[in-house]
Amino acid sequence: MKVCTTVQEMRKVRAAFGTVGFVPTMGFLHEGHLSLVRKAKAENDAVIVSLFVNPIQFGSPDDLANYPRAIEQDKALLAREGVDMVFIPEVSELYPSGFATSVEVKDVALKMEGASRPGHFAGVATVLTKFFNIIAPQKAYFGQKDAQQCAVIKRFVQDLDISVEIKTMPTWREEDGLAYSSRNARLTAAERAKAPALYKALCVAQTLVHGGERSRAVLEAAMKQVLLEAGLSEIDYATIVNPETFEPEEQITGNALALLAVHLGAVRLIDNLPLLP
Amino acid sequence: MKVCTTVQEMRKVRAAFGTVGFVPTMGFLHEGHLSLVRKAKAENDAVIVSLFVNPIQFGSPDDLANYPRAIEQDKALLAREGVDMVFIPEVSELYPSGFATSVEVKDVALKMEGASRPGHFAGVATVLTKFFNIIAPQKAYFGQKDAQQCAVIKRFVQDLDISVEIKTMPTWREEDGLAYSSRNARLTAAERAKAPALYKALCVAQTLVHGGERSRAVLEAAMKQVLLEAGLSEIDYATIVNPETFEPEEQITGNALALLAVHLGAVRLIDNLPLLP
Repeated sequence: MKVCTTVQEMRKVRAAFGTVGFVPTMGFLHEGHLSLVRKAKAENDAVIVSLFVNPIQFGSPDDLANYPRAIEQDKALLAREGVDMVFIPEVSELYPSGFATSVEVKDVALKMEGASRPGHFAGVATVLTKFFNIIAPQKAYFGQKDAQQCAVIKRFVQDLDISVEIKTMPTWREEDGLAYSSRNARLTAAERAKAPALYKALCVAQTLVHGGERSRAVLEAAMKQVLLEAGLSEIDYATIVNPETFEPEEQITGNALALLAVHLGAVRLIDNLPLLP
Repeated sequence: MKVCTTVQEMRKVRAAFGTVGFVPTMGFLHEGHLSLVRKAKAENDAVIVSLFVNPIQFGSPDDLANYPRAIEQDKALLAREGVDMVFIPEVSELYPSGFATSVEVKDVALKMEGASRPGHFAGVATVLTKFFNIIAPQKAYFGQKDAQQCAVIKRFVQDLDISVEIKTMPTWREEDGLAYSSRNARLTAAERAKAPALYKALCVAQTLVHGGERSRAVLEAAMKQVLLEAGLSEIDYATIVNPETFEPEEQITGNALALLAVHLGAVRLIDNLPLLP
């Protein structure tokens, strides 16, 4: 497995590959990431994984500083999966002095996570546009856990005519239902014990919809009740949205998505679940 | 010469070419454009020219509506130059319903033309990012007449790691010094007679600098005097800037640029000249 740290070296090595599947990550890899790597390996000649904690997608310096890192462990995991190349650039390699450009997305990127974390999706869209231009992958792989991120990426890739197919893979969960996230590592034992309530709340909403319920207000109330009963009161949002626009849906139709963002102490977790099969 | 109107067809035809030189234009072609086409032809296997009046780079609906168009004449000129492919998309082909993305540039793009025409450079950067992704040219050609546009393009191409070399070609001028511009066609005879004063003002500044003058205030005053004496009093700016940052320079150094934007009736003209060899 090759390790590249510069854009120039990355382009040179990539040119020797055939079709490339790309898995962008911020490192501290878990089973969710590895499921993307395995899918990429099955569908392409070569797999490239980036490990880069992208500063411009963080709103708070604290969140950036506290984001967990484990580069050596990540490299060992990726080598074991047969990844062809890992790209680990320094911040100054991607954002040198004088950097002045941003890929901005409106509409879907201004709702929910976009409203809670101003500038977050512009940071994501900007770094991914750079990665897509440097690596020129045929396919790129993302987890459904970040459902709105997937929608934003599909939007700007289509709008800017970027030649990459965006593949969204199912959320990987612990046995108790908690979605894998690098941020889980920052939960205290007490917080970790409460965290499965996110998935439980989503499942309650799904069960209600399967039983015929279609009112957003009823579903929201049911989800919030589950969270509150688990001792999770710092709810950023718990709602039902259209999975492309992320506009709230009053009456559930088609492929509506139940969507949560909840603070547990210093950690903010998100999760989501499609409500209809 | 092939004519394409859709992105899909454009990608397909382009794939059959080797190296491509790309000349993006808004049509109503003049000798300045054709000089870019000839350079592109000399340096690449194939030349692709786009004719697209890009609505998102116009601030005023009037300016957009009044921008001159002559598609059939343009196609005849390009065929005569041996251009391989012309791309003439409809607005709805590049900006379909739901389009929500913008490439935004700070710093150099917020000065001078950026301050006078808010959103202009974001419109330019967005459409060019699309063209570069659709056409994948090795080189793209722009006129030095739009000096700030050239600086903004170099900035976002570098920032987003787009694999295209930006070539800037000298400004093409009429015998009396007026820079070729599609907007010249909208000047009345009386305005056209006054228009060479822009170049004359730039030359006066250059002559002063060659004679040892280094003060921006003195050079600005000299340029404004030439314009006012010619009856051009609606001066947007007449100043001296650094050619990369477009920050005004108090004391002229290195490759400083004299820069003008002047209204002649309904038409706004720009021009520029490097002050030192």
